[in-house]
Amino acid sequence: MKNKQRKTLKTPAKHRRTKHALGNAPGTIRYVGSREVEQQIIRVTDYKENYHSVQEVKAVEQVFQYKDTDTVTLIDIQGLNQEEEIEKLGKHFQINPLVLEDLVNTSQRPKVDEYEDYIFCVFKSVTLSEANRVVIEHVAIILFQDSVLLFQEVENPVFDGVRRRISNEYGRIRYKKCDYLYFALIDSIIDQYFVVLEEITDHIEHLEDQVYNYPKSAIVNEIQDLRKEIIDLRKNVLPVREISARLVNTEHKLIGEDTKLYLGDVHDHSVQIHETLEMLREMSMSLMEMYMSTVTVKMNEIMKVLTIMTSIFIPLTFITGVYGMNFQYLPGLHSEFGFYAAMGIMFLILVTLIVYFKSKRWI
Amino acid sequence: MKNKQRKTLKTPAKHRRTKHALGNAPGTIRYVGSREVEQQIIRVTDYKENYHSVQEVKAVEQVFQYKDTDTVTLIDIQGLNQEEEIEKLGKHFQINPLVLEDLVNTSQRPKVDEYEDYIFCVFKSVTLSEANRVVIEHVAIILFQDSVLLFQEVENPVFDGVRRRISNEYGRIRYKKCDYLYFALIDSIIDQYFVVLEEITDHIEHLEDQVYNYPKSAIVNEIQDLRKEIIDLRKNVLPVREISARLVNTEHKLIGEDTKLYLGDVHDHSVQIHETLEMLREMSMSLMEMYMSTVTVKMNEIMKVLTIMTSIFIPLTFITGVYGMNFQYLPGLHSEFGFYAAMGIMFLILVTLIVYFKSKRWI
Amino acid sequence: MKNKQRKTLKTPAKHRRTKHALGNAPGTIRYVGSREVEQQIIRVTDYKENYHSVQEVKAVEQVFQYKDTDTVTLIDIQGLNQEEEIEKLGKHFQINPLVLEDLVNTSQRPKVDEYEDYIFCVFKSVTLSEANRVVIEHVAIILFQDSVLLFQEVENPVFDGVRRRISNEYGRIRYKKCDYLYFALIDSIIDQYFVVLEEITDHIEHLEDQVYNYPKSAIVNEIQDLRKEIIDLRKNVLPVREISARLVNTEHKLIGEDTKLYLGDVHDHSVQIHETLEMLREMSMSLMEMYMSTVTVKMNEIMKVLTIMTSIFIPLTFITGVYGMNFQYLPGLHSEFGFYAAMGIMFLILVTLIVYFKSKRWI
Amino acid sequence: MKNKQRKTLKTPAKHRRTKHALGNAPGTIRYVGSREVEQQIIRVTDYKENYHSVQEVKAVEQVFQYKDTDTVTLIDIQGLNQEEEIEKLGKHFQINPLVLEDLVNTSQRPKVDEYEDYIFCVFKSVTLSEANRVVIEHVAIILFQDSVLLFQEVENPVFDGVRRRISNEYGRIRYKKCDYLYFALIDSIIDQYFVVLEEITDHIEHLEDQVYNYPKSAIVNEIQDLRKEIIDLRKNVLPVREISARLVNTEHKLIGEDTKLYLGDVHDHSVQIHETLEMLREMSMSLMEMYMSTVTVKMNEIMKVLTIMTSIFIPLTFITGVYGMNFQYLPGLHSEFGFYAAMGIMFLILVTLIVYFKSKRWI
Amino acid sequence: MKNKQRKTLKTPAKHRRTKHALGNAPGTIRYVGSREVEQQIIRVTDYKENYHSVQEVKAVEQVFQYKDTDTVTLIDIQGLNQEEEIEKLGKHFQINPLVLEDLVNTSQRPKVDEYEDYIFCVFKSVTLSEANRVVIEHVAIILFQDSVLLFQEVENPVFDGVRRRISNEYGRIRYKKCDYLYFALIDSIIDQYFVVLEEITDHIEHLEDQVYNYPKSAIVNEIQDLRKEIIDLRKNVLPVREISARLVNTEHKLIGEDTKLYLGDVHDHSVQIHETLEMLREMSMSLMEMYMSTVTVKMNEIMKVLTIMTSIFIPLTFITGVYGMNFQYLPGLHSEFGFYAAMGIMFLILVTLIVYFKSKRWI
Repeated sequence: MKNKQRKTLKTPAKHRRTKHALGNAPGTIRYVGSREVEQQIIRVTDYKENYHSVQEVKAVEQVFQYKDTDTVTLIDIQGLNQEEEIEKLGKHFQINPLVLEDLVNTSQRPKVDEYEDYIFCVFKSVTLSEANRVVIEHVAIILFQDSVLLFQEVENPVFDGVRRRISNEYGRIRYKKCDYLYFALIDSIIDQYFVVLEEITDHIEHLEDQVYNYPKSAIVNEIQDLRKEIIDLRKNVLPVREISARLVNTEHKLIGEDTKLYLGDVHDHSVQIHETLEMLREMSMSLMEMYMSTVTVKMNEIMKVLTIMTSIFIPLTFITGVYGMNFQYLPGLHSEFGFYAAMGIMFLILVTLIVYFKSKRWI
Repeated sequence: MKNKQRKTLKTPAKHRRTKHALGNAPGTIRYVGSREVEQQIIRVTDYKENYHSVQEVKAVEQVFQYKDTDTVTLIDIQGLNQEEEIEKLGKHFQINPLVLEDLVNTSQRPKVDEYEDYIFCVFKSVTLSEANRVVIEHVAIILFQDSVLLFQEVENPVFDGVRRRISNEYGRIRYKKCDYLYFALIDSIIDQYFVVLEEITDHIEHLEDQVYNYPKSAIVNEIQDLRKEIIDLRKNVLPVREISARLVNTEHKLIGEDTKLYLGDVHDHSVQIHETLEMLREMSMSLMEMYMSTVTVKMNEIMKVLTIMTSIFIPLTFITGVYGMNFQYLPGLHSEFGFYAAMGIMFLILVTLIVYFKSKRWI
Repeated sequence: MKNKQRKTLKTPAKHRRTKHALGNAPGTIRYVGSREVEQQIIRVTDYKENYHSVQEVKAVEQVFQYKDTDTVTLIDIQGLNQEEEIEKLGKHFQINPLVLEDLVNTSQRPKVDEYEDYIFCVFKSVTLSEANRVVIEHVAIILFQDSVLLFQEVENPVFDGVRRRISNEYGRIRYKKCDYLYFALIDSIIDQYFVVLEEITDHIEHLEDQVYNYPKSAIVNEIQDLRKEIIDLRKNVLPVREISARLVNTEHKLIGEDTKLYLGDVHDHSVQIHETLEMLREMSMSLMEMYMSTVTVKMNEIMKVLTIMTSIFIPLTFITGVYGMNFQYLPGLHSEFGFYAAMGIMFLILVTLIVYFKSKRWI
Repeated sequence: MKNKQRKTLKTPAKHRRTKHALGNAPGTIRYVGSREVEQQIIRVTDYKENYHSVQEVKAVEQVFQYKDTDTVTLIDIQGLNQEEEIEKLGKHFQINPLVLEDLVNTSQRPKVDEYEDYIFCVFKSVTLSEANRVVIEHVAIILFQDSVLLFQEVENPVFDGVRRRISNEYGRIRYKKCDYLYFALIDSIIDQYFVVLEEITDHIEHLEDQVYNYPKSAIVNEIQDLRKEIIDLRKNVLPVREISARLVNTEHKLIGEDTKLYLGDVHDHSVQIHETLEMLREMSMSLMEMYMSTVTVKMNEIMKVLTIMTSIFIPLTFITGVYGMNFQYLPGLHSEFGFYAAMGIMFLILVTLIVYFKSKRWI
Repeated sequence: MKNKQRKTLKTPAKHRRTKHALGNAPGTIRYVGSREVEQQIIRVTDYKENYHSVQEVKAVEQVFQYKDTDTVTLIDIQGLNQEEEIEKLGKHFQINPLVLEDLVNTSQRPKVDEYEDYIFCVFKSVTLSEANRVVIEHVAIILFQDSVLLFQEVENPVFDGVRRRISNEYGRIRYKKCDYLYFALIDSIIDQYFVVLEEITDHIEHLEDQVYNYPKSAIVNEIQDLRKEIIDLRKNVLPVREISARLVNTEHKLIGEDTKLYLGDVHDHSVQIHETLEMLREMSMSLMEMYMSTVTVKMNEIMKVLTIMTSIFIPLTFITGVYGMNFQYLPGLHSEFGFYAAMGIMFLILVTLIVYFKSKRWI
C-alpha cells in the first residue's frame, strides 16, 4: 500500500458546466465540453421508398436544401464546437436560440421540448470504452416535418444499426415517415443501455466473487468506482423514462398514431432500464457490506489464532520461568524425575487448553 | 477457506437481453432466451358447458379453426424459439408485430397492453426448483373473444389446477366465458407466488437460526444469494400489482363485470404479495446485520480470553524472570523460604487480577 | 453459548396461506388457519331502545330470522372452520362467495369491500398473550341494514366493552342504528392497538436499559424478535388507515352522516397508530445500533487493558531476560548493587509507560 | 461503568393513552394526562378597539355571557381534569362531544376540524424545561364568531406575547377581529418551535465537539436521548404543516381573506420547521456514525501500540532466552565480547523493526 | 490528538431566527441577521434601448421617482438593517408589511409570492469564501411593472454579469422589458450554484483520495463538515425547483410569454441542481463508509503482524525457557550438540509456522 499514489475515478470533466460559461446572456451558443474537433462532419442520409443517398458535406449551407423535400432526411452533425456553423443552421431551420444553447451544452440533462414546428430532445448515449469503462455521450435530436437533425460530439456506433436498416431496400424504415426515423434513433440509444447494464451486472458478479474469495483492500476502490458509474448512469439515464412517457402521450402533429405505438415500446424498455438501475444500485451497496463482513470474519479468524497461540504458550513459559529461577532451595531441581514431572504438568495444561478451545468451537 | 473456488448465484442468463438482439428493427420476432426446443408443442383445450376436448397438435395451422367458435378454447403453446410458427399464428390472429416481439422476449417485464380485439399480458410464473431455488418462467397470455393463447417456454405445472377444473364437468369454469378462463390462468400464477414466498420465509427463519447458533462465514454467501433471489422476485413480481389494478378498472369489451369482481380478488392478492415481498426484503437485510453483530460479539469473547490469559501470566512470568537473573547478590536466593515467598507473591497477584476481572464482569 | 439450541420466533403459521388452498376455484370457502374448533358458537345480541336480549345458538338456521327486523342484531360467530355452516349463512344473507372465501381465510389482509346491500371488512385484532407476545386475530365484519355479522376464530375480549355498553339500558348505543354498532366494533379493535403499542414501547425502553447496562449477546435475539413483531404489526395494522379513510368518504347508504363523524375519529386514531408504529420501528432499529456501539466500546476497553499490561511487562521481562543470560562477562553481575540498578531501570521504564498511557487518556 | 444503574429517557407518560380510557363510549369526556389540578383557572380577556379587560373566574358559568358580544373574547381555561366543567361549557357553546373528548385527551395528535359554527384545532406547544429538556404541552383552540376558547393543562408562557399585544392600546390586534386573535395564538406556538429547534441544534453541535474530543461511552446515551427527543418532536410538530395548509385554503366563514394572508405566513414557517426537523434528524443520525468511527479509530491506535511493543520485544526476549539456556557448549558464552555481540544483534533487530513500522506509517 | 481543542463548523448564526424576534406582531419589520451596516447603499440602474444610467443614492426617497417610468429600473438596496428606510420604501411602493418582514428576515427560506401588482421572491445566493467555504446570502427580489427591487445584505458579485450586460449597448437585455431583467437576476443566482457544486464535487474527490491513501482521523471531521455544508445547501437551494416551476406556470400579468420560455430554462437548471445535490449527498455518505472500511482493513493488517510475530516467537521462547530451567538432569544439556539440536527444532517450528501463514494468505 505504501507510497502507492492513486487517483479516484473522476466525474468526467466534460459533463461539467465550466466556469467560463457563466455570465453569458441566456441563449448564447457556447460549446461546453472537451471534445474540440477541427472540422465538423455533416453526413446527410436522404431516402424514400425507392431512393437512398448518403453524402458527407463540410459546410452547413449544403444541407439547407433538405429542409422541405418529399424525402426523409437524416442530417447527422458531428462536432459541437463549431458554434457559428450551428448558429447558421439554427437560423435557416428557425430554431429557438435556447434550443441551440442546450444543444451544444454537453452538461444538459436529458429532456424533451416541444415547439410548434419541431421537437427537440437531448439524450445521453452510453457505451463501453475498451477498458470497460462507461462512456457517456451527449446526443441532441431535432425532429422536423421532413428531416431529423442529429447532433453528436464524435461519431457514435450506436446509430450504425439504423443506418444499415436505411440502406436496406426492403427495410420497413424505408416505407415510413420521419417520425419513425426519430423513434428508431431513440430506440437505438435505449437498446444500447441494456448492453451496458448487462456488462455492469457481470462486473458486480465478478466483484462478488473477488470479495468472497480474495478480499483485497484494493477492492474497496473498485466498488467505489462502480458506485460512481452507477450514480453517473442514474443521472444520465433515469430521465429517459419521463421523456418517453411524454412522447407517448404527446399530441404534437409531428408524431403519428402508429409511431406512438412504437414509442410505447420504448417507454416499456425505459421502465425496465429504470428498474435494472435501481437493482444494480442495491447490489452495489450490498457489495460493500459483504466486503466489510468478510474482512471482519477474517479478523475474527486471525484473532482466534493469536488467542490460541498466546493462551497455550504463555502459561507454559511461565512454568519454565519458575524452574529457571535461581533459588537454591527449589523443590525437585535435583531430583532425577523433576524435569519429566515439569514436562508432564505442561502437557496436562496443554491438553486442558486444547479441550477448552475445542468446546468453544475455536479449533 | 483456502483455494475454495466459488461462484456466486448468477442472475439467470435467460432473463437478459442478449446482444445479438440489438440492431434489429422493432417488431422483429427474435427469441431471446436459452430454452431452445426442437419442436414446439401446442395443446388445444376446447370446452363449453357440456363439451370438453384436449388435443396436441404440432403445426400452428391446426389451431386456426378455433379462432371464432362458440366454445372457449385454450391454446397452450410451449417453446418460443420457433419464430416462424409464431409469426404465422400472429398473422392469422391479426396480432401486432410488437406484441409478437414481446411475447418471445423472455426478458420482457410483466405488463398488460389492451388492443381493440385482444388483451395481451406478460407474467412471470415463479416456482421452486428441486434444489429449492427460485425458477422464474416467462408466460404470455392473449385474450381473444373466444380463445385464450398461452405462450410458455416449457410446460409449467402452475396451470395444472386450471386444466383439472376444466376437465371437471361440474366445475364453475365450464359455465363461464373466455374472460373467466383468462382470470383463472392469472389467478393460478399469483397463487403460486404465495407458495414460493412461504418457502423463502422458512428459509430466512432457518438462516436466522444458523446465524445465531453456528455463524459460519459461508452464511454471508447464503444471505447474499437470498437477497439476490428477493431482488429478482421483486423485479418480476412487483409489476403485477399495477397490472391487476389496470385490469380491474379496464373498460375493455372482453372483460365482463362479474369477472372484474374476480380480478379484484387477484388485485387483493397481488397487494398482499407486494407487502410480503417488502417484509422479506427487510428481514433479509436485518439478517446480515444480525450476523455481523454475532461475529462482533464472538470477537469480543475471544478478546476477553486473550486479555485475561495475557494479563495474568505476563506479570507472573516477569517475576520468575527477576529471580532468573544471574546477579550474585540477589536477595532471598539463598534463603530456604525464598522460593515459597516468590510463589506467594505470584499467588497474590493472581488473586488480585481475578478479582479485578470479576469486577469488570469479564469472567 | 455452547450447544444452546434456540428457535427464532416463527411467523405464526396461521397467517400463512397453506398449500392445500392452492388449485381451488376462486370463491371456494376453505378455512385457512390452525384454530379448528369442534363446534362453532353463535351469539345473537338483539336490542333496541327499550329491549335487549342475548342468546347462544348452535345452528346458523336459528339466526336467519334476525335478518330483517326493526331491532339491531349483532350476530357473533366464533369458529371459522365450519365451512358448510358459513356457506348456508352466506346463502341466506345473499353474500358473494368471494366474500365468504375471504372471511374464512385468516391470511387475508385488512380490507373493506362495499357491496350494494352490505359492507364487508376484515380487520386484525391485536392483543397480548400472557407471555406478553403479540397475538393477531382475524376479524371479519359484515354490516347489513339491520344486523352486523361478526366472524372470529375464538372469543375475543376486545369486544367486551361493546357488549357491556349494549347491555346498559341508558347507553347511547341503544338509541343508535346498526351503523353505530358497526363503528363501535371497529373502534374497539383500534383502541386495543394503543394498549399493545404502549406495551411494546415499554418493552423497547426496557431493552434500552438492558443494552446499556448489561449487554448480553442474548439481547440480539430479543431485538430481532421485537423487530419481527413490529414487522408483523405493520403488515396487519397499517392498512387500517386506508380503510378508515375510505369509510369516512363512503357514500354507501348504510353509513349515516353522523356515524361518519365518529368514523372520522377512528380515522384520526388510525393515523396516530400509523405514526406510532413508524416511531417504534425507528426506535427498534436504533436499538441494534446502540447495542453494537456498546459492544464495540467494551471491546475498546478490553483492548486497552491488554495493551497496557502487555506494553508494561514485556520490556521489563526483556530486561530480566538480559540478566538471565549465561554470559560469563556480563557487566554488573558480580557487583553488589547490580540487582538494585536493574530494578531501578525497570521502575523507570514502568513510570515512563504509565505517564505515556495517562497522556493518551487510556488510564 | 460497573453497577452504574441508569434509566433511559422515558417517553413522557402523559402522552400516552392510558388503559382506563379504553372501553368508553366515543364522545365520553375523560381527561387523559397526569397534570391533575385541583381548581381550574379561567382567564377572560375581553377587548375591542378602545376597550380592554382581563379577569379571572372560577366557574365556567361566568363566561357564558361572552359568547355573543361585539367584543373579541379570549377565554383561557387552564386545567383539563375538571371534566364536568368542560362538559357544561361544551353544552352552552354547543360543541360536539367528540370535540370535547379530543380537547381533554392530551395524547391527541395535532389536527384541525371545521364545524359549521366553529373551528377546532389541537396543537402541541413546545418549550424547554430548566434542565433543557423538551417539554410538550397539549393546547386546544376553538374559534367562534366572537370568542376564542383556549384550553391548556397549565399556564403556558408561549402566549404571553399575545396578551401583551392585546393590552397595548395601539397594537394592531386591537383593531382586528377574532380570526386574527386565532392566528396570533397559532403564530405564537409556531414561533416558539424555532427557539427549541435552535437549542437542539446547539446541543447537537456540542455533542459533535464531545464526540470528537472526548468520546466517552456515556455519549451513546446522550445521543440516544437526543434522537428520542427529535422523534417526539417530529410526531408532535410535523402535522402542523398539513394543518396550516388546510387553514390557508379553508373556505370557512370564520376566517377572513386578510387573515389567510397571515396564515400563509404561518404555513411558510411550518414548512421551514419541517425542513429543520428533517435536518436535525439527519444530523443526529450521523452523530452516532461519527462516534462509532472515532471509537474504531481509537481502537486502531491502541492496537498499533500493542503490536509495536509486542513485535519489538518478543524477538529480543527470545534472544535473551537463547542465551539463558543452560547448555554447556553454547557458543560465545565464555567469550569476553559474547554479551556485547548479543546486545548488538538485538539492537540491529530493534532498528530493523522500527524502520519497518515507519515504512508502514504506524509510528 | 491530545488536548487538541476543536470547534465543529457552526451552522452560520445569521441563518437563525434569533430570540428577540419572537413576540413581535406579524408584519413587524425587524432585521434578523448579523450583517449590520451603518449606511445602506442604494444603486439605481435605469435603462432602455438607447439610454443607460447608474447612480448611487443614500436616501430611499430619491428612488421614488423611478416607480412609474417608461424605462426599466433596477433598484439595488444593500444593507437590510435600516428598517425605517425599508418601511418608507414599502409604503411608497405599496408593499404588504408581511413582504417587508420576510425581506429583512435572512432566515426566510426561498419562496415566491404573487401579489396583484408585484411578485415577491426570496432566493439564497451561494458563493465560495476565500477559504473555500460555502457562503449563503439572502437575496430578495420584487418585480414591479417598470422596476425591479433587489435587496441584499452586502454587495454580491453574483449580479456583476447582469450589470455588465445592461451597460453593453447592444446587449439583448436592453431591448427587453422588466420581466427579462427579473429572469436575468434569477438566472445569475442559479448559474452560480453550478460553480459551487462543481467545487464541492472536486472537494469530495480530493477527500476520496485522502481517505484511500492517507486515512487520518482528522478526515472524519472534514467529512462531517462537508455533510453539513451539503445539508445547508439542500435546505437553501432545493426549494428553487419548486419556485421555478411556479414561475413557469404562472399567469401573472407581469410575466410575458417569451420570458416564460427563459424561465423554463431556469427550471431545467434547477432540476439539474437538484439532482446534483442528491448525488453529492450520496457521495458524501459513501465517503464515511469508505473511510470506515479503510480503517478496518488497516486494523486487519496490524492484527496480522501482531499475530504472526507473537505466534512465531512465543513457541520459540517457550523452548528456550525449557532449556533455561535449572533441573540438574535435563537431557542434552551436557551434550556437545544439544544446543544445535535445540536450535534445529526451533528452526523447524519457524518454518512450519511460516508455511502455515502463507497457506492462510496472511503473508
